[in-house]
Amino acid sequence: MNTLFEHTSIRKFSSKKIEEPVLENIIEAAARGSNTGNMQIYSIVVTRDQTLKTELCKRGHFGQASIEKAPIVMTFCADLNRFTKWCELRNAEPGYDNFLSFYTATIDTTIAAQNACIAAEAQGLGICYFGTTNYCADEIIDILHLPKHVVPVTTIALGYPDEKSKKTERLPHKAIVHSETYTDFSNEDIENIYAEKEAIPEYQGYIRDNNLENLAQVFTKVRYNTKNNKTFSKKLLETLKKQGFMNND
Amino acid sequence: MNTLFEHTSIRKFSSKKIEEPVLENIIEAAARGSNTGNMQIYSIVVTRDQTLKTELCKRGHFGQASIEKAPIVMTFCADLNRFTKWCELRNAEPGYDNFLSFYTATIDTTIAAQNACIAAEAQGLGICYFGTTNYCADEIIDILHLPKHVVPVTTIALGYPDEKSKKTERLPHKAIVHSETYTDFSNEDIENIYAEKEAIPEYQGYIRDNNLENLAQVFTKVRYNTKNNKTFSKKLLETLKKQGFMNND
Repeated sequence: MNTLFEHTSIRKFSSKKIEEPVLENIIEAAARGSNTGNMQIYSIVVTRDQTLKTELCKRGHFGQASIEKAPIVMTFCADLNRFTKWCELRNAEPGYDNFLSFYTATIDTTIAAQNACIAAEAQGLGICYFGTTNYCADEIIDILHLPKHVVPVTTIALGYPDEKSKKTERLPHKAIVHSETYTDFSNEDIENIYAEKEAIPEYQGYIRDNNLENLAQVFTKVRYNTKNNKTFSKKLLETLKKQGFMNND
Repeated sequence: MNTLFEHTSIRKFSSKKIEEPVLENIIEAAARGSNTGNMQIYSIVVTRDQTLKTELCKRGHFGQASIEKAPIVMTFCADLNRFTKWCELRNAEPGYDNFLSFYTATIDTTIAAQNACIAAEAQGLGICYFGTTNYCADEIIDILHLPKHVVPVTTIALGYPDEKSKKTERLPHKAIVHSETYTDFSNEDIENIYAEKEAIPEYQGYIRDNNLENLAQVFTKVRYNTKNNKTFSKKLLETLKKQGFMNND
């Protein structure tokens, strides 16, 4: 429970090696996660090779250094390739080249990834998720030789921590929990929910440095803007098509 | 770690009430999960009302009884509604009505859900995931009054176990782990990976009862067939459009 409550992302790792039994526990935890029909429609690519990590860093994750410097990079992939191959070998017609199958696999893959993270943290390791996986899925497919019916969903950098990172704030529970059915937010609710977050001094500095009016604009103008979101939406949907997951008719 | 390794799905629950502090720990664990830009673009609808649970069971989950009978049903939703409303109130132009934003939220939602499950199990509760959420997202949106920019991703039934459920088998690690890059499977690899699973006596009975040739056909002809996968792919993509997540141009 403490492992869950005390999670912080770690982006700087020591040179201490991750021993095989520690990694095996991480894989076992991932494999034990709930999954649809026990089909295990996911794969984990474990990359330690420096040349590959550097390439993943540069072309797959916008140059974020933790990818290059982590002892291990784990790429969690939605994988219908293995299952489809098994079906073909058994005179069973596979029907997993569609959006639902991909989407189901994405959820199962993420459950496996989060179990892996908790197992890593419970063993003293630090982790960081990389959402850049979804911006550069196509490049990662190329680097890791992912075949048709395989798409990277998320990436985790893994190692023993070489930094103390402090817990980031969260919105109050009332912001994320709805009782019985969904209760939509009034302007007053929104003011109330975001007040504490907006008052954090660190964010104030960031707003000033970027010549912005407020924290929301940091997100919409700098971090996650409309133009990029649309560009990368189209790119990701193209990748899903290319990997054989858009045969819905 | 033991919580991760010993997970089994629980579908029968005792009448023992889930106390508020236990639920609060579950919510806190969910909220502490890694998430993109700390935007917390997810929501959890906690349903205890019997009428609502019965409706969720019938229209949202193909009549699966655990939904109706569990003390608590938690519907985890990808939610860009709260964040978009905050941006609008701050003169910040939100650009989160696209596939990438939805997809990112799906991953963050699933991380939160898995943290919730582990926190539940660590406190002696049992859980079961319901993938039917993705087949009946539209019906669940209706029942739970989910507004635009909110889509249910997964559902968890929650309660104290009233059954002993045994751990289901998993494929050997070599089936899910790839070293450095992806190594595709030869026919011999597939034979090798699935041999143990195919020999399980329980599955043999299921094959005979359904007049099928093998276990793969149980999946392709009975459990997850092409026709249903395509039908529900189209339905889900329609729902994403309706909820305002397909404005990619």
